[in-house]
Amino acid sequence: MSDTLLTDRTRVVRHPERGAYDRETIHQILDAGFLCHVGFVSEGQPFVIPTGYGRKGEYLYIHGSAASRMLTNLAQGVQVCVTVTLLDGLVLARCAFSHSMNYRSVVVLGRAVLVDDPAEKLEALHVISDQIIPGRWAEVRQPSEQELKATSVLRLPLTEASAKIRTGPPKDSAADYALPIWAGVLPLRLTPGDPVRDSRFDGPPSQAPSQIPASVRSYNRGR
Amino acid sequence: MSDTLLTDRTRVVRHPERGAYDRETIHQILDAGFLCHVGFVSEGQPFVIPTGYGRKGEYLYIHGSAASRMLTNLAQGVQVCVTVTLLDGLVLARCAFSHSMNYRSVVVLGRAVLVDDPAEKLEALHVISDQIIPGRWAEVRQPSEQELKATSVLRLPLTEASAKIRTGPPKDSAADYALPIWAGVLPLRLTPGDPVRDSRFDGPPSQAPSQIPASVRSYNRGR
Repeated sequence: MSDTLLTDRTRVVRHPERGAYDRETIHQILDAGFLCHVGFVSEGQPFVIPTGYGRKGEYLYIHGSAASRMLTNLAQGVQVCVTVTLLDGLVLARCAFSHSMNYRSVVVLGRAVLVDDPAEKLEALHVISDQIIPGRWAEVRQPSEQELKATSVLRLPLTEASAKIRTGPPKDSAADYALPIWAGVLPLRLTPGDPVRDSRFDGPPSQAPSQIPASVRSYNRGR
Repeated sequence: MSDTLLTDRTRVVRHPERGAYDRETIHQILDAGFLCHVGFVSEGQPFVIPTGYGRKGEYLYIHGSAASRMLTNLAQGVQVCVTVTLLDGLVLARCAFSHSMNYRSVVVLGRAVLVDDPAEKLEALHVISDQIIPGRWAEVRQPSEQELKATSVLRLPLTEASAKIRTGPPKDSAADYALPIWAGVLPLRLTPGDPVRDSRFDGPPSQAPSQIPASVRSYNRGR
C-alpha cells in the first residue's frame, strides 16, 4: 500500500504549499465531515450531487436509492470525484484581492463499485450513520431485508486523493499592513440548534419517548 | 426568457416532489449560500472543486487565480456543473432506513465563459465579495489594475438548473410510529465564532484599527 495518495491528477497546482497527500491527513479530514459532493459524467456532462458518506479503513462508502441517477451512473464503474469541504472561517484581509477562506478539503478520484455482499452493505450503512451522527444507529430500528435491498451502497477505494488546507491570518502585501483596516479571521462552524421532536407517536402514551437521546444531546461537529 | 430552468438533464429523478425549477426558488437558495462545488471534466475524469461564488441577475460568477487548473479548464468553454448545498438539519427517524437530511440545494448546468471586460470583472468581484460577507468590499482597499489582471472571473448563465429541498419531520413507515424511539430534526447552521484580529499592524499606533467592522460584527448566514 502506497504511503501517499499523490498522483499527477491529484497534485495541488494552485497554492501547492496547502497540499497534503498522506493518509493520516486525508483520513482526519474525511472523518471530520459527513457530507460530500460526488462528481460523475453522464453523456459528457458533469454532475455534482451532495450526499452523506462514511469512511472505514481505506474505503469511502456512499449510499442512496438504487433509483437515483447518480448511483445508476456510478455503479457502471465510471470515474468519480468525491470532494469533502470543511469550511473553518472567512479570511478578511486589508485589500479585496487577498481575501480568502480557511478550510480543509479532500478530493478523492477513482471508480466506485456497488457493494453486493449483504454483511458489507449493512456494515457500510452503519459506518455512514455513525459518521453523520455517532451513536444513532444503536438507538433505532435496524434495516429490514427489504430496506437493505432498496438501498444501494457504493465503495470507493482511497488510492488517489489530495488534501488542501488553509489556516491562519490573512496574507496581505507588505504595504497594506500599514492601512488602518481591521483584518483577521471570522471562524465559522456548523452548529446544532435545539432538537425539534416529531410529535407523532402512535404507541401507548406511557411509552412515549420523552428523553432526548445521547446521540442528539451530545452532537458536536468539532471533531 | 423561460420561466423554468427545467430540462431533461435537471429534472429531479429521486424524490421528484422535492424538485423546483422556478427562478425565484433557485435565486433564493443561491443567494443564501456563498460556497459552491464546481464540477468539470478533464481527460474523461470529473473534478469537483469548492470555491466562492456570487449571483447577479441571471448569472453566477466564480473567481480564482488565472493559474488554477479549474479555471483553465472552465475557460475553454467545457460543460460545468455548479452545485450549492445548504444543510439545514439532520432528520432522525425511528428506523435507520428513514434517516435523512433537511437541505436546500441547487444544481446549475452550462458553459462558463471568461469575463474579459474590466468593468464587469470588477463588478463580479464585488458581487462575489458581498455574497461571502456583505459590506466588506466597501471597508477594504479596492483591487489594483495588476490584481484585477491576476484574477480570473467566470460567468455562468442560469438557464438550466434545478433546486431540491427537503424540510420537516422524518417520514417513518406507519408501524414505526408506535416504537418508543425519539425522532425529530436536529437543526444545523453555519455559525460565526468570535472574530480573531490579525495582530500585525505596520502603521502609526494611533491609527491601529480597534473596532470590529460592521461586516464582521453583524455577520449572519441566516438569510
